[in-house]
Amino acid sequence: MSAAPRYVDTDVHERAELEDLLPYLPSVWHKYITEYGWTPERMNPYAQPTAGGLDRADAKPGDGRPAGSSLELLREQLLDEFGIQQAILTGWLSATALQEGWTEFKTALMSAYNDWQVENWLQREERLYGSIQINAWDPEAAAREIDRMAEHPRMVQVMLYIGGEPFGSPRYHPIFAAAERHGLVIGIHHSESSAPALGRHRYYAEWHTLISQVCMAQAVSLIFNGVFEKFPDLKAILIEGGFSYVPHLMWRADQQWRELRHEVPWCKRQPSRVIRENLRFASQPIEEFTSAGLLTLLDQMGSDELVCLSTDYPHWDFDSPEQSLPIGFPDELARKIFSENALATYARLPAELPLAGGARA
Amino acid sequence: MSAAPRYVDTDVHERAELEDLLPYLPSVWHKYITEYGWTPERMNPYAQPTAGGLDRADAKPGDGRPAGSSLELLREQLLDEFGIQQAILTGWLSATALQEGWTEFKTALMSAYNDWQVENWLQREERLYGSIQINAWDPEAAAREIDRMAEHPRMVQVMLYIGGEPFGSPRYHPIFAAAERHGLVIGIHHSESSAPALGRHRYYAEWHTLISQVCMAQAVSLIFNGVFEKFPDLKAILIEGGFSYVPHLMWRADQQWRELRHEVPWCKRQPSRVIRENLRFASQPIEEFTSAGLLTLLDQMGSDELVCLSTDYPHWDFDSPEQSLPIGFPDELARKIFSENALATYARLPAELPLAGGARA
Repeated sequence: MSAAPRYVDTDVHERAELEDLLPYLPSVWHKYITEYGWTPERMNPYAQPTAGGLDRADAKPGDGRPAGSSLELLREQLLDEFGIQQAILTGWLSATALQEGWTEFKTALMSAYNDWQVENWLQREERLYGSIQINAWDPEAAAREIDRMAEHPRMVQVMLYIGGEPFGSPRYHPIFAAAERHGLVIGIHHSESSAPALGRHRYYAEWHTLISQVCMAQAVSLIFNGVFEKFPDLKAILIEGGFSYVPHLMWRADQQWRELRHEVPWCKRQPSRVIRENLRFASQPIEEFTSAGLLTLLDQMGSDELVCLSTDYPHWDFDSPEQSLPIGFPDELARKIFSENALATYARLPAELPLAGGARA
Repeated sequence: MSAAPRYVDTDVHERAELEDLLPYLPSVWHKYITEYGWTPERMNPYAQPTAGGLDRADAKPGDGRPAGSSLELLREQLLDEFGIQQAILTGWLSATALQEGWTEFKTALMSAYNDWQVENWLQREERLYGSIQINAWDPEAAAREIDRMAEHPRMVQVMLYIGGEPFGSPRYHPIFAAAERHGLVIGIHHSESSAPALGRHRYYAEWHTLISQVCMAQAVSLIFNGVFEKFPDLKAILIEGGFSYVPHLMWRADQQWRELRHEVPWCKRQPSRVIRENLRFASQPIEEFTSAGLLTLLDQMGSDELVCLSTDYPHWDFDSPEQSLPIGFPDELARKIFSENALATYARLPAELPLAGGARA
């Protein structure tokens, strides 16, 4: 590519330590963190077999704090390193990925997280955009939190971390209504609590191979429960599951819809059409394709507007934007994946960039 | 195609009523069926939304017995109708798809089923080949049952119906050892007890769209647990999940194996190579493809030897062999899917057919 490409990165994980959230959390909840040692429960039985655990070893700041906790390092290793002009924060702590229950605490924790995110990331770095973290187990409160946080102009998305539930159920519709009302994308991301078909399997390599299934399962749930008929302007993006499953998902869902749609009469459009109109896919972890192979895959998807660049910084399987697309891949399509598709998807993401040099607040 | 094609159908469901099995079952177990009303537990919450329930409405014999219970009707609607020369029975009753426990009864029931199958189907119709039904919850007994039934020359397969467990675990290896010892294919088939990612979902259409995930999950389990390194001559066929997921599975599994194989050092071969060497896929339910689209898919799979015709008679989503492949699909490749791939997969399936007219015993 002749000029440096414009990049929008749709999956960057900023990270707090729980203590960082205390100033934003009502004091009634403090003692559970400071005295009783509450931490998010881990449901994943694997000892992550890479040198940095879940993270790139070199993304740890070296002061004992976790990867993703340092804005300076994130600027250096991601924004400046690759010239990324806009990056969407996707968080790591989600009540929705935890067990249901203790709703009041977890909902308050998500509010604290959002305020921490604004003050420590969005207000300090103009290239960053935010995701509203919610407790989807409490949909009405989640909708109120969306209304509250949507006032911040650089919030572009509502995050739904996948726990054990498909999100198509009417229970979650207040969340979709709130997102649609504010022009926010629904970001759907797996978590340690998301189990693929037949449960968690014996090895991390199995689980990690199969997590694209939880993305497929959420797509199917949203489609067949009519979420996108009820909220036609809503867009959802499936993050961190890649996108090579999309043709299979389209073919299979279309076939089943043709044969079984009398069961779900509210599904008026063919699932593949719903996918093309309402769903998007973050690119990471992109598999090894030749240019011709990737073009074939996009052709099978019936659209070159569905895939948006994501790096998954600072996780161990980070995709470098410079190496994510195969050699020889056409510039025009690369531009779509690198930035144009995300700009068309995220209604609140400005197409116009601030003046060069004004990026840092 | 100029001459009538040779068909091998790799998925035909014969069906017993429980009372049919009593003559083959030790009398100690009779009362649970005749007096206490045991039936296989149903774990699937859906009222199957087609006119015939799980079955083609026209495949019910009309005497109150279930579809698949009449050899005469199966001959008329399947073998004679389409000129199918060889068909592999896949059953419907599997202890492995039921809850674990009460092992002795369920293992005995599988033995009774196998003897019933031989006497009522294989001995009455030479075009039919059998699958050994086992209780995989009791692997040592299952291996003994395989040894016992393998003496029947028209048993070509061991069926593993999918319940809630991935089969890669060493627990199940005695079954694979026995199958390999006798040149029997492992047939893996979903059941009402197989849940995709995020559980059973709200609608049958969702569950049925996602059941290809349990096939993928079993493939991943077998591969990453090294089953095909330990049993290199073993072949397994994934039945009733279609095959359009295979390219995605290959790409994703190869990527994860490259990055994480230090966790599973017994996996010496790239997963896509293992799939091409050891796994096969029954065609039904085949999605709607153009000829070019299907050729692309086979090209992505890197082999035209992996897909074997299956009709799934007598179930509601039966695929007619005559309509399963798209118009204009090359004859040479159609022959592979219709018969040659199955003949190369099932070591015990004779390539030479009995003399014409001698088909019925």
